[in-house]
Amino acid sequence: MKHFINDNFLLENKTSRRLYHEFSAHLPVIDFHCHLSPRMIAEDRQFENIWEAWLEGDHYKWRAMRTNGVSERYCTGDAAPEEKFSKWAETVPYTIGNPLYHWTHLELARYFGIYDLLSPYTASRVYQESSRMLRQKDFSTRSLIRKMNVEAVCTTDDPADSLEYHRKLKDSFDVRVLPTFRPDNIIKTDDPAKFAAYVLKLGESSGIKIKDLDSLISALDARHRHFHENGCRISDHGLDRFYYSAFTGAEINRSLQKLLSGESLTPEEGEKYKTAVMLEICKMNHARGWTQQFHVGALRNNNSRMFMSMGPDTGWDSIGGGQDPVRMSQFLDTLDLSGQLAKTILYNLNPSDNEMMITMAGNFNDGSMAAKVQYGAAWWFLDQMEGMNKHLTDLSSLGLLRRFAGMVTDSRSFLSYPRHEYFRRIACNLIGCWIEKGLVPDEDDLIKPLVEDISYRNAKQFLGI
Amino acid sequence: MKHFINDNFLLENKTSRRLYHEFSAHLPVIDFHCHLSPRMIAEDRQFENIWEAWLEGDHYKWRAMRTNGVSERYCTGDAAPEEKFSKWAETVPYTIGNPLYHWTHLELARYFGIYDLLSPYTASRVYQESSRMLRQKDFSTRSLIRKMNVEAVCTTDDPADSLEYHRKLKDSFDVRVLPTFRPDNIIKTDDPAKFAAYVLKLGESSGIKIKDLDSLISALDARHRHFHENGCRISDHGLDRFYYSAFTGAEINRSLQKLLSGESLTPEEGEKYKTAVMLEICKMNHARGWTQQFHVGALRNNNSRMFMSMGPDTGWDSIGGGQDPVRMSQFLDTLDLSGQLAKTILYNLNPSDNEMMITMAGNFNDGSMAAKVQYGAAWWFLDQMEGMNKHLTDLSSLGLLRRFAGMVTDSRSFLSYPRHEYFRRIACNLIGCWIEKGLVPDEDDLIKPLVEDISYRNAKQFLGI
Amino acid sequence: MKHFINDNFLLENKTSRRLYHEFSAHLPVIDFHCHLSPRMIAEDRQFENIWEAWLEGDHYKWRAMRTNGVSERYCTGDAAPEEKFSKWAETVPYTIGNPLYHWTHLELARYFGIYDLLSPYTASRVYQESSRMLRQKDFSTRSLIRKMNVEAVCTTDDPADSLEYHRKLKDSFDVRVLPTFRPDNIIKTDDPAKFAAYVLKLGESSGIKIKDLDSLISALDARHRHFHENGCRISDHGLDRFYYSAFTGAEINRSLQKLLSGESLTPEEGEKYKTAVMLEICKMNHARGWTQQFHVGALRNNNSRMFMSMGPDTGWDSIGGGQDPVRMSQFLDTLDLSGQLAKTILYNLNPSDNEMMITMAGNFNDGSMAAKVQYGAAWWFLDQMEGMNKHLTDLSSLGLLRRFAGMVTDSRSFLSYPRHEYFRRIACNLIGCWIEKGLVPDEDDLIKPLVEDISYRNAKQFLGI
Repeated sequence: MKHFINDNFLLENKTSRRLYHEFSAHLPVIDFHCHLSPRMIAEDRQFENIWEAWLEGDHYKWRAMRTNGVSERYCTGDAAPEEKFSKWAETVPYTIGNPLYHWTHLELARYFGIYDLLSPYTASRVYQESSRMLRQKDFSTRSLIRKMNVEAVCTTDDPADSLEYHRKLKDSFDVRVLPTFRPDNIIKTDDPAKFAAYVLKLGESSGIKIKDLDSLISALDARHRHFHENGCRISDHGLDRFYYSAFTGAEINRSLQKLLSGESLTPEEGEKYKTAVMLEICKMNHARGWTQQFHVGALRNNNSRMFMSMGPDTGWDSIGGGQDPVRMSQFLDTLDLSGQLAKTILYNLNPSDNEMMITMAGNFNDGSMAAKVQYGAAWWFLDQMEGMNKHLTDLSSLGLLRRFAGMVTDSRSFLSYPRHEYFRRIACNLIGCWIEKGLVPDEDDLIKPLVEDISYRNAKQFLGI
Repeated sequence: MKHFINDNFLLENKTSRRLYHEFSAHLPVIDFHCHLSPRMIAEDRQFENIWEAWLEGDHYKWRAMRTNGVSERYCTGDAAPEEKFSKWAETVPYTIGNPLYHWTHLELARYFGIYDLLSPYTASRVYQESSRMLRQKDFSTRSLIRKMNVEAVCTTDDPADSLEYHRKLKDSFDVRVLPTFRPDNIIKTDDPAKFAAYVLKLGESSGIKIKDLDSLISALDARHRHFHENGCRISDHGLDRFYYSAFTGAEINRSLQKLLSGESLTPEEGEKYKTAVMLEICKMNHARGWTQQFHVGALRNNNSRMFMSMGPDTGWDSIGGGQDPVRMSQFLDTLDLSGQLAKTILYNLNPSDNEMMITMAGNFNDGSMAAKVQYGAAWWFLDQMEGMNKHLTDLSSLGLLRRFAGMVTDSRSFLSYPRHEYFRRIACNLIGCWIEKGLVPDEDDLIKPLVEDISYRNAKQFLGI
Repeated sequence: MKHFINDNFLLENKTSRRLYHEFSAHLPVIDFHCHLSPRMIAEDRQFENIWEAWLEGDHYKWRAMRTNGVSERYCTGDAAPEEKFSKWAETVPYTIGNPLYHWTHLELARYFGIYDLLSPYTASRVYQESSRMLRQKDFSTRSLIRKMNVEAVCTTDDPADSLEYHRKLKDSFDVRVLPTFRPDNIIKTDDPAKFAAYVLKLGESSGIKIKDLDSLISALDARHRHFHENGCRISDHGLDRFYYSAFTGAEINRSLQKLLSGESLTPEEGEKYKTAVMLEICKMNHARGWTQQFHVGALRNNNSRMFMSMGPDTGWDSIGGGQDPVRMSQFLDTLDLSGQLAKTILYNLNPSDNEMMITMAGNFNDGSMAAKVQYGAAWWFLDQMEGMNKHLTDLSSLGLLRRFAGMVTDSRSFLSYPRHEYFRRIACNLIGCWIEKGLVPDEDDLIKPLVEDISYRNAKQFLGI
């Protein structure tokens, strides 16, 4: 009997199969954006059971469980691991059509060799078998990464982070684990007390007393340098949207003083402050030859009741409204005009912005290098089969697919590396269908490099990691 | 020769056919949102001819006729019924690619056994034959409903409605015909005179003199209770968008006084008034265990010349701009925070909001029951093959298709029940294609309940009707 | 061996092939919107080489080259023609999936009979061969137009244009070359000095001294009449969005005085001025029985550095944000209410507006003629296979495909006429797939006129040219 997860999973025709199996499957993985814990890798954490590895921190699964009527006790609450797992197993048959159904079975197959469909009937066996394996040495975090042919991993780190685990990993792990500079906290101005506490922490980590804009920038730059020295070549910016409002240094200093003394900013002051600080950080990115990533369009923490009880990143976020292209254009243009626009990858969460964002990226490609400003992989809610197909189709129609830097897991889970396989199968299927419909010549000279570039090579070359 | 409408209409492959014919076709219909006249059902109206049943009140068909260059005389004007019908028959061949082409032939086939393609050549015969049948007793409104295996119908009713016809139907008709509480008139503040007249009517129907916010809410609550006692379990809210602005009771009372004395509200006053009144109504929905429906995103009455001559709902409405997710989030969050968020179904008219709305619904599923806040069927302009396919695909990719409460006709016409068949064929075709592409396991244990749930069972269980 | 560009290019099945080859391929082309230079046609320009004909003015190709890392020297810079061409040939293999790949090979095949895939390996041969042909008399601009079975061409012209070349062409060329009235410059108020200079030019061309709104309108009307006398039957309006704000004549006069004396308008003054002038121009369109086109949604000149060095229309534009349906509705409604709404075609650049725009058009079809207000062909960035398929599908689902006025090249290039073939193949393929899936009856009576109408006949009849 043919398994659900089989060699030709997602590959509709002969050409697609050939493209994937011959040109893509064997290539290493460059996972240049994820949320793995460097500490867990450094300590080579061993999981006690599949719940720890799969469900302890996965808000995608929690959201599906809640939508399926599973109470919080079994998501983030105090039920026993196997009880929680069995509630997840009950939910899986209800996820038909959702990426979770594919991810679940791909992960069971690739890490554990389990080809059963997860359901209440198989739950106990799957739990026991996968948990038993996870307790073996060759299922430690490092082993899980190695199994998946990963060449480099970029974690996501606060500027105040010491990067001690990255340093430990440098000499002790054959897979490169590099930090990413993610300075979002310095533009979170909604809660002045929290902001001031963060400024203090940033000042301490940099050894610079932050009292005005200049010292703030100096402190950020010191950390930026520290990150660079520890192998960082990428920044990441999670913004609800691009900010742009003309400002003066005096205005920004006044806003900073207000915040540090516990006063809230007006919306206009906030816009100017964020514009100013983001521009300065982007100039650092350019100065050190980094690539900057912008993730725009999430609307977070919509459910106050749940946010108050369990904090951010627990499954209460959604896709926001469309982006304002004018501010996005102004922000990028300001950097370009002074010759300080770094290599840039733009990610969006509302798919009705795909076309605008792809053409916006095109406005800042001046021929100085290939795809200097480019459109990033389908993100978060869109990182699923339909979302990827739309992403790849939109990018092809409006830009150059061949220059696409490719897939990232963007995940907190050590079991999510098969998402690179998932992406590659979907991309090869799309291209294979183009070929069989005669939309693209059936010439290996043209197609092999395309598949290789978007599977692996572009990420390596573009990011220089 | 194979008819255009045949057993396999819309079903592309073997699996799709099996899913539809074995798992879906025989299930009863729960039509939980429509605009049928309870009076016409109570009086068991008999139509004189196919024009009365099909064209007398159908703005979808009028819009197509006008776009085809047919003058108003043949749409809403004074031409004879058969003349009007023949203009519609002339238009039909011009609707290739539009849902009207499918609906027209599906309705002719299912009610009248007519398989001819409607055109000027067949117009006269179709008119005579269908009209002759309509004049028979087994084509009365009740018979038409019974023919289509309908189990329950929810009409759409103003709070001031006496519900006399629903009461009559309770004991005289084997199909449940339940009212829906649709209090839109109480937040239509643009025309103070019209508003005041409505407040008077509402006061009379409830026996409560409305002089301030408290008495307004009491009156609405009295009607809400009256509806509940008459079997209503659903409210419906047709909003251009969600409203949210913080307010005080004093502000709302002042606004109400202004309106009742013929004064217009400022936009900010209007926003607060609508927020306040909608929140109170939603709390009633929660208190009585109802399901609330929100239909957002229409831009109505765009053509003033035609609006002035023929009033609303005559075919001059369109899809509006994108929704503001922030206000939507704030509105739902406010109810959730006080533990008063009722079961909710969100419908949108601009498809570029699909993804945002589906993920917004997800933010308020707290595990207390399955799909407590959910995304409703493709609505109005989107209630067609492409719109449904996008709807089902988006819902699957971002939520749980299996928990979808399913299809509604949303129609004024007694001949529109085949739209449930249309939906089921499209859904079975989509799932059948998934199976044949290996995207979903070919296991009846998984697929049969999915098809049954979204065809029939979810509506019944979710709404408790 | 089968060529990439072969008889069945883009035609997936037997029915699609039959529709295209039997019903569409032979029909003449009405290209009612393009940017060809009437002077080049009048002078029957002969190109020296393929670079002149293909790359000298094509910002689509420049954008792709820049994104591929080709420096400006080879786009708009001073490299030699063959060097530039070879950089384009290097880029072509990187455009797999982009319309440029299809257009390039379709154009090489149709004009030059070259079926090689363009790449560095074939670059030199293709350059020599095509350039040699271009230098022959039967490859002059007029010959290139004639080769493609073109019946009429509408260029795009400023109201101040003398139309001398159109007059010359009237008697000397068997293809009708008609002007289009494009008065965008008169609502470009951002730069008062530039505006004043334009007003002077417009005044001179009309022989009317422009000193207030009345004289401005008189001057525009004089030019409108002049265009009409020279065969113009279409206006075109490139707007970032529709403008609408109620105004008084006195306000507009004051704004005009401000502009003419070098003062900038406030945003509100600008909105009123643009509303007023656009309404007046639209009334002229109605009075002379013209068709007006609106192209909305571009965000232009995003890259200031490049704009300063090379000016507009050089490849630094992108898709803008979503349109505001309320202002669009108000603008069209104002004209409709006074009985002065001309035949109208609406084009949009952000595809998330497709559905809104199609239904907006529907609001103003009053039955006085077929598709009086209609949705235009997929425009600019959307004028590619996916964009066209979405366009045709959206238009069918929400309007009447059969009444669609059809394709335009919208191009500056004399080699772009195969885009009509491209459109026809895509449309026939879509309809052929509908037929083979049983979504549309397989009846030539229904389908032949549909294919003919959208390929050719509708444009001719609707525009009256």
